[in-house]
Amino acid sequence: MEVAQVLPMNGSVEEASYANNSLLQRKVISLTKSLRDEAITSLYCNTLPRSLAIADLGCSFGPNTFLVISEIIKVVEKLCRELNHKSPEYKVFLNDLPGNDFNDVFMSLDTFKEKLRNEMETEMGPCYFSGVPGSFYSRIFPDKSLHFVHSSYSLQWLSKIPEVGDNNKGNIYLTSTSPSNVHKAYYKQFQTDFSFFLKCRAEELVEGGHMILTFLGRKNSDPSSKESGYIWELMAMALNDMVLQGIIDQEKLNSFNIPNYYPSPSEVELEVLTEGSFSISRLEVSEVNWNALDNWDHFNDGYNVAQCIRAVAEPLLASHFGEGVIKEIFNRYKKILGDRMSKEKTKFTNLTLMMTRKA
Amino acid sequence: MEVAQVLPMNGSVEEASYANNSLLQRKVISLTKSLRDEAITSLYCNTLPRSLAIADLGCSFGPNTFLVISEIIKVVEKLCRELNHKSPEYKVFLNDLPGNDFNDVFMSLDTFKEKLRNEMETEMGPCYFSGVPGSFYSRIFPDKSLHFVHSSYSLQWLSKIPEVGDNNKGNIYLTSTSPSNVHKAYYKQFQTDFSFFLKCRAEELVEGGHMILTFLGRKNSDPSSKESGYIWELMAMALNDMVLQGIIDQEKLNSFNIPNYYPSPSEVELEVLTEGSFSISRLEVSEVNWNALDNWDHFNDGYNVAQCIRAVAEPLLASHFGEGVIKEIFNRYKKILGDRMSKEKTKFTNLTLMMTRKA
Repeated sequence: MEVAQVLPMNGSVEEASYANNSLLQRKVISLTKSLRDEAITSLYCNTLPRSLAIADLGCSFGPNTFLVISEIIKVVEKLCRELNHKSPEYKVFLNDLPGNDFNDVFMSLDTFKEKLRNEMETEMGPCYFSGVPGSFYSRIFPDKSLHFVHSSYSLQWLSKIPEVGDNNKGNIYLTSTSPSNVHKAYYKQFQTDFSFFLKCRAEELVEGGHMILTFLGRKNSDPSSKESGYIWELMAMALNDMVLQGIIDQEKLNSFNIPNYYPSPSEVELEVLTEGSFSISRLEVSEVNWNALDNWDHFNDGYNVAQCIRAVAEPLLASHFGEGVIKEIFNRYKKILGDRMSKEKTKFTNLTLMMTRKA
Repeated sequence: MEVAQVLPMNGSVEEASYANNSLLQRKVISLTKSLRDEAITSLYCNTLPRSLAIADLGCSFGPNTFLVISEIIKVVEKLCRELNHKSPEYKVFLNDLPGNDFNDVFMSLDTFKEKLRNEMETEMGPCYFSGVPGSFYSRIFPDKSLHFVHSSYSLQWLSKIPEVGDNNKGNIYLTSTSPSNVHKAYYKQFQTDFSFFLKCRAEELVEGGHMILTFLGRKNSDPSSKESGYIWELMAMALNDMVLQGIIDQEKLNSFNIPNYYPSPSEVELEVLTEGSFSISRLEVSEVNWNALDNWDHFNDGYNVAQCIRAVAEPLLASHFGEGVIKEIFNRYKKILGDRMSKEKTKFTNLTLMMTRKA
């Protein structure tokens, strides 16, 4: 199956739309602000560009889309004032899969630009925005056309479901009961995808260009540890219950696997070293509670996290199991999540990787 | 009123959608193919670019969107084969107002690219597509970033309704009964808009870059001649009938004016000379029957032309007169059109302007 066809964030159901359930992503963006500020400052001061080409990969739509772009421009404008430089021209490329709601992004653009201009103390440089549809596991920009690449909470998605056949019975991600060939298939897909991602970006970035990536990862060396796949293990519980009750077909569940991988820092480092085009300036680990609201209201916890996962995974689940069972899956999932979150402190692990394109 | 808010082509009603009623635009694109081929050949042979940045302004959506781009790439690829050159890298910028259905464009992109590759005899250069939302009556691209600009059937739209107040009573465009201050307001808006359009594009094109524009115009020196505004005069008949029957408010009609202008070749030439950044290589006049199907079935004629106008003007009319009367307007308009087309040979006049950015 082509992941690109079913991956775009949920745009359909209002309550379950990505735009309304992206608080976690927003929290992670704010967690990693200081690293981005450092990267853009270093880029600006080392290259003093007259024109600054910035790409956000997996820009999605909704309130988060312009958050990082707006921050980056503010940092550069502040540097320009401090150094008494003329503002550069900004070229902003918003990338996502073709199924993303770019209409929503484009219709919000004028409001965003006006807000940004109002927040500036002085006149800012001209900004040119464009939407670039396509998978970042392919070339999407011309040769040496970018100075700064950003991506947040997108790279944990693999380009396709690892080739595990029905070897991962009853599971939908790596767990301690997954056989070793499933482990190998997942890791291999991560290596292929991440390495090709680096190669493509290396061709698109200018020498000295910066890239900052945040994605779900893990600290534990075991990829099937509870730290990384627990959120899917709980969904598998809901799905298995539905199989037992005859709502979902056993075969259907056996052939379903989530195209995600949560690498460890050393797995990431190994790919960057092997691919060879980038030098790592930082590789930081952070954590964020499953429920970005942190309100300790466990019923709502379950609901919020379920909605958050629904916003990213509904099209994938619907294309495999059918639209008809989606509501039931998420009702059950919500209850399981609420129960676990009342008993355990559940967190996601994030990796943030800051790199420079070598000369 | 901001024309940009209501201008985007009709995406709503299936039968009346722009995608299904753009045969006329397609015919005009094919009429002007030889001029485009000449322009792109001249550009390629004079500059031998390694990277070719092409913008289509007012790209819309539907079957016509990729037509011109595909033609241009084919011409360049053929030249490369003949001259034994390596294919350039193509950067394609698809521009339209933010309300255009870019989602539709982006979802068709993979199919288009595959089709194009299949039609090529040899391997073609890499193509990078992006969508650029914004009015072409503003800067939308970075300085000196384009080699070739194309626009077809978009520039007859003004940036706003000329400031005529209610001086054009009972009319919705320039007619022989429009007072002279209405004539002046329309012409002034054309001059302001077209001159600013040229200035913006001059900043965005590289020296020696080419621009080819096709838009509705007229041969007659009188801007209120039947040649140019007749299509709107017939719509005004439908609207006036509805006023008489109390369906539309007289005041509403008096304050409605179509933000179009159909210039003469000399009016166009004057603006290009005055603005000063471009030299004209060609300025050609062509004609196309109102009914692009040319089937002389007069009932269908009225229907087809009404649908074609509806596809471009429905959002504008709906925002002024309300959604409720749209169906009635177009039913009446269809009958009037059918009647006139059975008695007269009705045609649109097109101007095609080929220019080079001066050094």
